[in-house]
Amino acid sequence: MLTTERQKVTTAIAGAAPFGAGMIIRQKEPVNFEFPFEKLDSFLTPNELFYIRSHFKAPELSADSFQLKVHGAVAKPLTLNYQQLRQLPSETRAVTLECAGNSRVFLVPQVEGAQWALGAVGTAEWTGVPLRILLEQAGLTENACEIVFEGADHGAPKEKPIPPGMVSYARSLPLKKALSPEVLVAYQMNGQEIPEHHGFPVRLIVPGHYGMASVKWLTSIYAVTESFAGYWQTSDYAYWDYLDGKPVRRPLSEVRLKAQIARPSMYEVIPAGSEYLVSGAAWCGEGEVAGVELSTEGREHWTDAEFLDSAQPYAWRRWQFLWHVPQRAGQYTLAARAKDADGKTQPDEHDPNHGTYMINFPLPIDVIVR
Amino acid sequence: MLTTERQKVTTAIAGAAPFGAGMIIRQKEPVNFEFPFEKLDSFLTPNELFYIRSHFKAPELSADSFQLKVHGAVAKPLTLNYQQLRQLPSETRAVTLECAGNSRVFLVPQVEGAQWALGAVGTAEWTGVPLRILLEQAGLTENACEIVFEGADHGAPKEKPIPPGMVSYARSLPLKKALSPEVLVAYQMNGQEIPEHHGFPVRLIVPGHYGMASVKWLTSIYAVTESFAGYWQTSDYAYWDYLDGKPVRRPLSEVRLKAQIARPSMYEVIPAGSEYLVSGAAWCGEGEVAGVELSTEGREHWTDAEFLDSAQPYAWRRWQFLWHVPQRAGQYTLAARAKDADGKTQPDEHDPNHGTYMINFPLPIDVIVR
Repeated sequence: MLTTERQKVTTAIAGAAPFGAGMIIRQKEPVNFEFPFEKLDSFLTPNELFYIRSHFKAPELSADSFQLKVHGAVAKPLTLNYQQLRQLPSETRAVTLECAGNSRVFLVPQVEGAQWALGAVGTAEWTGVPLRILLEQAGLTENACEIVFEGADHGAPKEKPIPPGMVSYARSLPLKKALSPEVLVAYQMNGQEIPEHHGFPVRLIVPGHYGMASVKWLTSIYAVTESFAGYWQTSDYAYWDYLDGKPVRRPLSEVRLKAQIARPSMYEVIPAGSEYLVSGAAWCGEGEVAGVELSTEGREHWTDAEFLDSAQPYAWRRWQFLWHVPQRAGQYTLAARAKDADGKTQPDEHDPNHGTYMINFPLPIDVIVR
Repeated sequence: MLTTERQKVTTAIAGAAPFGAGMIIRQKEPVNFEFPFEKLDSFLTPNELFYIRSHFKAPELSADSFQLKVHGAVAKPLTLNYQQLRQLPSETRAVTLECAGNSRVFLVPQVEGAQWALGAVGTAEWTGVPLRILLEQAGLTENACEIVFEGADHGAPKEKPIPPGMVSYARSLPLKKALSPEVLVAYQMNGQEIPEHHGFPVRLIVPGHYGMASVKWLTSIYAVTESFAGYWQTSDYAYWDYLDGKPVRRPLSEVRLKAQIARPSMYEVIPAGSEYLVSGAAWCGEGEVAGVELSTEGREHWTDAEFLDSAQPYAWRRWQFLWHVPQRAGQYTLAARAKDADGKTQPDEHDPNHGTYMINFPLPIDVIVR
């Protein structure tokens, strides 16, 4: 009995350890947990608070039996075990990952899908082998045009149209991005082995793209000679674009420019006439966040915030703004918006062609002044 | 009053004329009418009995104001009016068109979509300009890879995922098929102007592909340099194939091998001990129908039928089979299946990856012998 009790406690601790207190549970099984964004107080998000987006149960993989295949349209197919992968040249890179559905709860009327608020975003230092090293070793054939990345997780998906049976999570990148130096086959997150729910032992990291591109539990890198119309980039994680006026379905890819307010949080009560340090973070895809503006009294007036972090590719910049809170009590709506190096800013409204993804209009944070 | 009455009658006649008696109405508006397949008694299907598959209201086009654009990735964009099109070299070709959803009513349990039985198929002689003549005149640029065909019909589609707003019917062909000599920009159907509901004044005819490729009310031929992921080949008129074990969404294209029984019709009562001339038609996509077999007493026994038509590319072959009807009264199930020149035959069951399309298992025709 004593042994059993001890086992129970040990199991409970082992099960609880990967998640920090305060994570917002959006779905319990499979695990979909959100970072409580109002707790943003460091450039790097701790592993135990980093948001988790899972489509299926986390596969049980071990480093000992792990194998990564590099195959398809290549001259020399490779199979690497975990030790072989770790012996290759590696890089460490701070990368902000945002779920393509982050801020979905701000869409009115409510849409289907996990009701993420602000915290399906985080920044970690990822360590791994640049993907292009593996692709160069395998030798892409001349007709290769995309690389398909497959995870060990699988199940029955839900978005229409639905293929029959079980589907492995898989996503492709065009050759140009796949060969870019920033894309990593990662095995460490913030200096530790990648935690189970973040893709242990190996995860693709695609800086500048929404999180769905950074395939967890990566086991297969497959070069193809045609555009890959997989489930997770046609039925799901896709949007409507236009070509010659006709709608065309495209895979979600590059992260859109966005600023988010961490503090105050929604419905926070703030003393009238006080000074409040509004803070948050801003990020984009391939470009650079060059400025953040805040509006506190209607969307016509925007004032510059100041940055806490310098600009670096593929990572967010935290910012702050000292708000002279009005004397007049009432509800106030704050919003932040980012500008990129070309002076472009966020759209005023959600684009219906983007469906339930890429929600990057300036999000209204309602607070109570009294 | 008299004038009004006369107008009413005239209008009624004018409205009724395009459709022959016996057409099966699957949807009244937009017009979706089925050929009563048990009336099959000629190689060519009369225009007024030819099945009609419409997605939206038929657009009101006139030959006088008609314009066809050939544009996009071309050296010399063209705009042709109706007379200019008719002055170009033309060909006449007998082509069998089958709706990709034909025989859907045979799927159990019932699926969504128009409940076509056997008659969403027909053969007509189409006259028009070979598409490749137009493409050669316009001069495709080297990076062109597909041609997009757009009709003048448009509306709000229904299959998920749905793009916001109104969509024109549009479909693409890969360059190889688009440049094949059999593809026509047609302006005549069985020697007459193409009737309104069949695409007046100009319809693309894509022999060997399901009917959805033969875009009605054709107004735009647009060369593109990337795979066209339009609504009508991703959300709708698409199926699941596999690539390296992963599902990929592909546009429906080539017609699958299929034989259908025209007579007897479902639940027909047949005298015991009589001789009954079973008849029907068989067709396929790019290949050739080389044989038809009939089963009358269980799917283990198949007997050869004889052809009424010789083999010609892209057109059906009618066939017949003299059935010595048993003395024993009861329900019998007949089925026909085709073989192609390679000896391949139809699948025993519907492939769930094909969704509600490409229904080409041997269809059971139940009859009553007494």
